Amino acid sequence: MNQDERHDAEVILVGNELLGGERGDRHLAFLGRALRPAGVRIVRAHTVGDHVGAIADLVRERMRAARLLIVTGGLGPTDDDITRDGVAQALGASLEFDEPTWSRIVEFFAARGRTPSDANRRQAMFPRGAEIVGNALGTAPGFHVQQDGAHIFVLPGPPGELQAMFNDLVLPRVTAAFQRPALRMEHFRTIGVGESQLVEMLGNTVADLDGFTVSWLPNIFGVDIVLTQKADANVAAMDQEATRLHERLMEQLGSRYYTHSETPLARVVGDQLVARAQTVAAAESLTGGTVARLFTEHSGSSAYFLASTVAYANEAKVDLLGVRADTIEQFGAVSEEVCTEMAHGIRRRAKASWGLATTGIAGPTGATPHKPIGLTFIAVAWEGGVQVKRLIYTGDRHTIRERAAHGVIWLLHDRLTRESA
Amino acid sequence: MNQDERHDAEVILVGNELLGGERGDRHLAFLGRALRPAGVRIVRAHTVGDHVGAIADLVRERMRAARLLIVTGGLGPTDDDITRDGVAQALGASLEFDEPTWSRIVEFFAARGRTPSDANRRQAMFPRGAEIVGNALGTAPGFHVQQDGAHIFVLPGPPGELQAMFNDLVLPRVTAAFQRPALRMEHFRTIGVGESQLVEMLGNTVADLDGFTVSWLPNIFGVDIVLTQKADANVAAMDQEATRLHERLMEQLGSRYYTHSETPLARVVGDQLVARAQTVAAAESLTGGTVARLFTEHSGSSAYFLASTVAYANEAKVDLLGVRADTIEQFGAVSEEVCTEMAHGIRRRAKASWGLATTGIAGPTGATPHKPIGLTFIAVAWEGGVQVKRLIYTGDRHTIRERAAHGVIWLLHDRLTRESA
Repeated sequence: MNQDERHDAEVILVGNELLGGERGDRHLAFLGRALRPAGVRIVRAHTVGDHVGAIADLVRERMRAARLLIVTGGLGPTDDDITRDGVAQALGASLEFDEPTWSRIVEFFAARGRTPSDANRRQAMFPRGAEIVGNALGTAPGFHVQQDGAHIFVLPGPPGELQAMFNDLVLPRVTAAFQRPALRMEHFRTIGVGESQLVEMLGNTVADLDGFTVSWLPNIFGVDIVLTQKADANVAAMDQEATRLHERLMEQLGSRYYTHSETPLARVVGDQLVARAQTVAAAESLTGGTVARLFTEHSGSSAYFLASTVAYANEAKVDLLGVRADTIEQFGAVSEEVCTEMAHGIRRRAKASWGLATTGIAGPTGATPHKPIGLTFIAVAWEGGVQVKRLIYTGDRHTIRERAAHGVIWLLHDRLTRESA
Repeated sequence: MNQDERHDAEVILVGNELLGGERGDRHLAFLGRALRPAGVRIVRAHTVGDHVGAIADLVRERMRAARLLIVTGGLGPTDDDITRDGVAQALGASLEFDEPTWSRIVEFFAARGRTPSDANRRQAMFPRGAEIVGNALGTAPGFHVQQDGAHIFVLPGPPGELQAMFNDLVLPRVTAAFQRPALRMEHFRTIGVGESQLVEMLGNTVADLDGFTVSWLPNIFGVDIVLTQKADANVAAMDQEATRLHERLMEQLGSRYYTHSETPLARVVGDQLVARAQTVAAAESLTGGTVARLFTEHSGSSAYFLASTVAYANEAKVDLLGVRADTIEQFGAVSEEVCTEMAHGIRRRAKASWGLATTGIAGPTGATPHKPIGLTFIAVAWEGGVQVKRLIYTGDRHTIRERAAHGVIWLLHDRLTRESA
């Protein structure tokens, strides 16, 4: 294959643990996004075990297909870390010991009051002629080789290290090599409408798009629509198309279309609260801290997120949220009445503008003849009022918890949106 | 390549969103684990975009290399769902409309008060001769083809649907085709010791293992050691080797080696609490609900996990946990003193045997000259006592939060382990 026929980029993920199910991949999604500013697309990815021969074969094959090849993982100090050997074999290069890298490894250990072991010496070995890509956060540097018209970057597995190295050292080199404008994408996020229904609603609008290809991405609680710029797109037409879809979504979905961006729902709500100088607190039963986690994932959430009480036990609902024991006795913990008291209780105790509450049966145990798995009440309370919804979520424990947490945050979003309208 | 030279299994993950970074893979780790009972290993995996030709080429190539090929994703109702077309092309088969499948799709929609759109009709199309693999949870059935000595299973992308179909319908067929004993693995989980240090401690023990290959799997808070059975392993020797490593870990790491299994730390602690009929509650600041989430991920956690209060604001620490305003004033919210009062406060208010607390600076904002990002206090309180630790965690916001949450759960584990010793 000659160079002109090569496509942009491929990724090789190395590790037995990725194939045996001990661990999921932690790099491909990052790399796909991180290459966008350089206008470069990943066209294919491969996962291979810790075998020198298999890695060497794959690198040899794929560097003929792609102009950029990123290889991740297997640069650690242990015997199964043999990526450098595989890549060296593919390049027909010997491995050589790099004294300055070894000094840095010794220093890295010294700063932590330790000395490196002999095993760490392999982390200072690189294929002859490779450019070393420094790693400020760990002991395993990466490397860069340019051969037969392909750029090959080999990076270590820990995500924090890989990401810092990519952004600081790899991206500038890739940008210089490709000389492309950034790849434009438009994100639209929706909640509570199924994929088929959304396609039906928007089919015509989306069928007309010229500048973009369309991806429908259902997640646990909603569907994201992502438009990716086609190679030959015209920028003015793209703007028009994105605006048209945005308007159509507003019209058809109202507050169920919550952002024309990649911003998570909890952050969209956070921004709405900041704009009004309001605050929120949550009382969580089945969501078990998920509502709190979604809000506090974002630095700066302390401006609007005051507190969450995860009251799993009935007694905790009484003691920590002021739910009346009578109410639990009469209606059960999973009831509209208890949910209402939880929302009011946390709002009052945390002195928040808004109180959220969730109670339900996440399963797989805990169902009763009248209360199936997935039965959930969500509530939002404010000064002088409350709105409660009864839902039956489907899915496993994790899915039900995530749906309920997003559901109650959306309930607040809906109310804030209506009030501003 | 003739059949005997083929390796076990390969996986093809289909979707532009996996390459563009809109979403991470959600299947490979599941499949790697789920194939173990059939004694089948995944040797390679591939990720490819939504292009009929690319899928067809890849399927054609990989069905010559592997006896089992699992293809996932791209069976939905939208235009970018073209996996069935790609696989049909690879097989040289035409797509045919299956009337019974269409009836089931119509029923599935009817049960939800809707009618399928024309777009859904493609979900009833299968390559001629394929065996349909039913999907009880969604509208997209999968299919199974046996051709030229390879088994090909094509499954839809939503993880809940794929997993149910795999367990109920695919695994029995794979087990029958391969006729292998289950693949044995031994897991050992540790926390708070780095990979290099662990390798140094255990190097000799692990170098001697005959029956297993060894993987070192660092995660955010610790390192898992996984032994995977070699093809020619002798079972009695394997038992001895696993026991030897277990004993060595007990001796070298104490409570930092928390389980010889895959059980998560929070569940190990849960089991310890159940055995003593004790309970726990948490007061979380920087961990923002992560401690609660880790405990309540497990059905049955209501037996020991009573409550967590996520007190993000200072006022909430006072109002909801009974921390004294004076203490915050004098020492700051991120201090040993506040952490101690939080742990006692939640223990008392939730009437729990143990109170856990976390306070710290998760970043990226919030650092002061004397309090760097990552500075964290964790505490465990009991009737008449408390233990507090000061730590500086490294990493991004998510990493610091996960480390602190696991850190405080480990602190309780350590105490429970010592008390039983």
